[in-house]
Amino acid sequence: MNGAQSLIRTLVGCGVDVCFTNPGTSEMHFIAALDQVPEMRAVLGLFEGVVTGAADGYGRMTGTPAATLLHLGPGLGNGIANLHNARRARTPMVNIVGDHATYHRALDAPLQSDIESLARPVSAWYREARSPEALGTDAADAVAAAFGPPGGVATLVVPADVSWTEAGDPAPARPRPAWATAPVDAVEGAAKAMRSGEPAVLLIGGAATRERGLGAATRVALATGGRLLCETFPARLQRGAGVPPVERLAYFSEMAARQLEGARHLVLAGARSPVSFFAYPDKASDLVPEGCEVHCLAGPGEDAASALEDLAEAVRASAVDPVLQAARRPDRPHGALDGSSIGAAIGSLLPEGAIVCDEANTSGLFALGATAGAPRHDWLCLTGGAIGQGLPLATGAAVACPDRPVLCLEADGSAMYTLQSLWTQAREGLDVTTVIFNNRSYAILAIELGRVGATPPGPRALDMFDLGRPVLDFVALAQAMGVPASRATTAEEFTTQLERALHARGPALVEAVI
Amino acid sequence: MNGAQSLIRTLVGCGVDVCFTNPGTSEMHFIAALDQVPEMRAVLGLFEGVVTGAADGYGRMTGTPAATLLHLGPGLGNGIANLHNARRARTPMVNIVGDHATYHRALDAPLQSDIESLARPVSAWYREARSPEALGTDAADAVAAAFGPPGGVATLVVPADVSWTEAGDPAPARPRPAWATAPVDAVEGAAKAMRSGEPAVLLIGGAATRERGLGAATRVALATGGRLLCETFPARLQRGAGVPPVERLAYFSEMAARQLEGARHLVLAGARSPVSFFAYPDKASDLVPEGCEVHCLAGPGEDAASALEDLAEAVRASAVDPVLQAARRPDRPHGALDGSSIGAAIGSLLPEGAIVCDEANTSGLFALGATAGAPRHDWLCLTGGAIGQGLPLATGAAVACPDRPVLCLEADGSAMYTLQSLWTQAREGLDVTTVIFNNRSYAILAIELGRVGATPPGPRALDMFDLGRPVLDFVALAQAMGVPASRATTAEEFTTQLERALHARGPALVEAVI
Repeated sequence: MNGAQSLIRTLVGCGVDVCFTNPGTSEMHFIAALDQVPEMRAVLGLFEGVVTGAADGYGRMTGTPAATLLHLGPGLGNGIANLHNARRARTPMVNIVGDHATYHRALDAPLQSDIESLARPVSAWYREARSPEALGTDAADAVAAAFGPPGGVATLVVPADVSWTEAGDPAPARPRPAWATAPVDAVEGAAKAMRSGEPAVLLIGGAATRERGLGAATRVALATGGRLLCETFPARLQRGAGVPPVERLAYFSEMAARQLEGARHLVLAGARSPVSFFAYPDKASDLVPEGCEVHCLAGPGEDAASALEDLAEAVRASAVDPVLQAARRPDRPHGALDGSSIGAAIGSLLPEGAIVCDEANTSGLFALGATAGAPRHDWLCLTGGAIGQGLPLATGAAVACPDRPVLCLEADGSAMYTLQSLWTQAREGLDVTTVIFNNRSYAILAIELGRVGATPPGPRALDMFDLGRPVLDFVALAQAMGVPASRATTAEEFTTQLERALHARGPALVEAVI
Repeated sequence: MNGAQSLIRTLVGCGVDVCFTNPGTSEMHFIAALDQVPEMRAVLGLFEGVVTGAADGYGRMTGTPAATLLHLGPGLGNGIANLHNARRARTPMVNIVGDHATYHRALDAPLQSDIESLARPVSAWYREARSPEALGTDAADAVAAAFGPPGGVATLVVPADVSWTEAGDPAPARPRPAWATAPVDAVEGAAKAMRSGEPAVLLIGGAATRERGLGAATRVALATGGRLLCETFPARLQRGAGVPPVERLAYFSEMAARQLEGARHLVLAGARSPVSFFAYPDKASDLVPEGCEVHCLAGPGEDAASALEDLAEAVRASAVDPVLQAARRPDRPHGALDGSSIGAAIGSLLPEGAIVCDEANTSGLFALGATAGAPRHDWLCLTGGAIGQGLPLATGAAVACPDRPVLCLEADGSAMYTLQSLWTQAREGLDVTTVIFNNRSYAILAIELGRVGATPPGPRALDMFDLGRPVLDFVALAQAMGVPASRATTAEEFTTQLERALHARGPALVEAVI
């Protein structure tokens, strides 16, 4: 058994049995070993941004890391943007980065680069394998680090000679330590704040945006009169009919400041203290209101849902019935196609158990409200602000959950970053419906230009937001990669096409011209 | 004048008047300033890999840096692969990376990352701007560092508040220091080696692969009986009828070893000592034959062409007439479409003054021989092995040389990395003809799998090289981004379509199904 085989067998033994990959020469022994270890499913992406984003989607939906297999520094480089998003989502993931043979590096061959320097900023854990005998142990350690707590992206660099040399047995899976419960004084401090009678906000994030955490948080808010918010871009928000609804902290800091206005206490459960996404001249970056005390109930590596249940008990809210979202759907829309009618169509059609990957940016704002009372579903957000996440995320979520429909809401500009994802969806027959919001512009930037005070923009500035010269034909792009596609210009067309796409198994794309 | 305006005016004053960009919120003041400084041409790319690869192509053809404008760590990350290639090509380039406002960073907002750690591996020079007053100086220093010697990628990180705050005057251009001439003893040592009567090889690279260096190197080889080779992947090789021809060191190390076999002296002029691209079990990584002495005539930062002229004088070769490539073209091909007939078609049609960007990998080997006697042209190679370079490189070369036809030879797998380049070509009306070699596979990897000793491959391994499930339709992909395209399945069809594409102004694509 060579190193590569020991590596793959260890990963499989640790529960990591999907590998998203775009390999190169230095990874050939890993690829060859796929035939020896059929338990490992390899999913090919045409670009590493697809690979890392898919691993993020997979990890968010399963709680188990997928592996990636990347080709040296440049292959890792291509995956960095979506690794950044995964890092912000705290998604468990095991990056395997192939490297030159150990003795080859001193020669500074053309593909040589400083992999560690590239990997560290996106990795919660980093190691370079040094011997084939230890490779199994390295892999088991990487998986353990990915699971955490607190978990995240674990990057293991594997030199080619470590892969191809005879190795020892695979390493067994490490025990999985329980996530820490919140300290008693953190629970007591949060309880005191929520019951103080002063305006208090409970801000939840991370693992607390699933049903258990939402239930406890809602009870706390009801019992104490405090305000419940969830972070702006949750990694995975469970929502829909029968699930406690939660208001999100707004993206625009002016709006977020209004949501937090007057708060004297801010209790954080799995969420970070709120800050503005970008800095703006003469606007606050730190969104905690003046005079507001911040209490950390559960931080990274702590079980936020369990802490919220402890808090519910401490504020005597355990027996309170949480408000659950009522079932309601908008009517099928008519007339003009715009963000509002697209939202209504999605809300009227969203299937039970759907996974929504949302990178629709400015255009998708209506979809959230319109789906609030749709059947129970998951909503996955752009956690790190690095665009090009939606299509890969949907790809990985569909691999993770083959029995659930995946709906990807995608802005035109962001779609063009990692559009190759569609080919992987076609190749694997994944049940992903992609909606492209084609407004032929980087619309968010036109807004942000004004917000940073750089107005009025001239024609040369505006030209940098214009995606309409030439117009991108997303129907042709999708079909060229094997994904059936159609274009809608009215609400009726869109609704009919979306319905057809959602009903068909396998990938489909609807381009909404807005 | 704010920092952004001071920055752009300084760049323009230093001769940097093209900026390839995909901006975000933190770069909005730079974008707004484009209307104040019309001398700066901004070229939008739909992905940062397009942006950095285009800046590489521009810098290779003009010798002057283009600027890039990138959005924080993830935007830089998306550009890293082609920055890696540019670093290997020693291309002058000024990366401007927008960052959060200085006071915003401590808050660790979602897009915050360690930009320096990401940038250092691909940058010859790095600085973070700290004040608007000094931003002009920073920019002038960056341009000076990009020009060198030895020159390369200079990365300047510009926090948003440094851009938007009132700044001082633009800084003047720095004096441009001359490249060092080779030391006398290096010339004497090389001369002694070449005239030793023992087998000697002169290996040229870097700036020595232009006409002046080629002429001097050819004279040295003729006068001394030594063998002349150029590096495997030159950044820019001048060639064609009337130019001294040069044999390239082979990519496969077994073949390269045969080219160097028996050499007792190896003289390097602008080239690095030859090493295998990858390591292979039981094959040498260092390609210098045993017992061969290596002599460095000109290293990085030294004027290799001038050193070769000094060497020619030292070996009394100055008056020797170099052998020049005779004009000859293959006939228009007939019959089956394959690498050979595609090469013949290109050789029969290549226009005078063409710039060939070669990322055809396995399929393009014939094109080089078939164009040897074509009219004078430039040949640009994949210098760093990070695929996804060809289309962006061609885009930048076409911006640099609007009066010259650009021909991009592109493998299907590599094309899919940065296909968004076609949209920029359409938007800017660039005269680029792209040939896609569609063999529906990562063919190089099937070869490399055997070379690393991981044979025989099973079906699951081979599936990772298969790009035919589903087949990619490059004609539809190109048309969807505004580039006229056609598909050829015979030599006659290909030749006719290539001829039409080369004659038409503006971008065009021919998909060769092989």
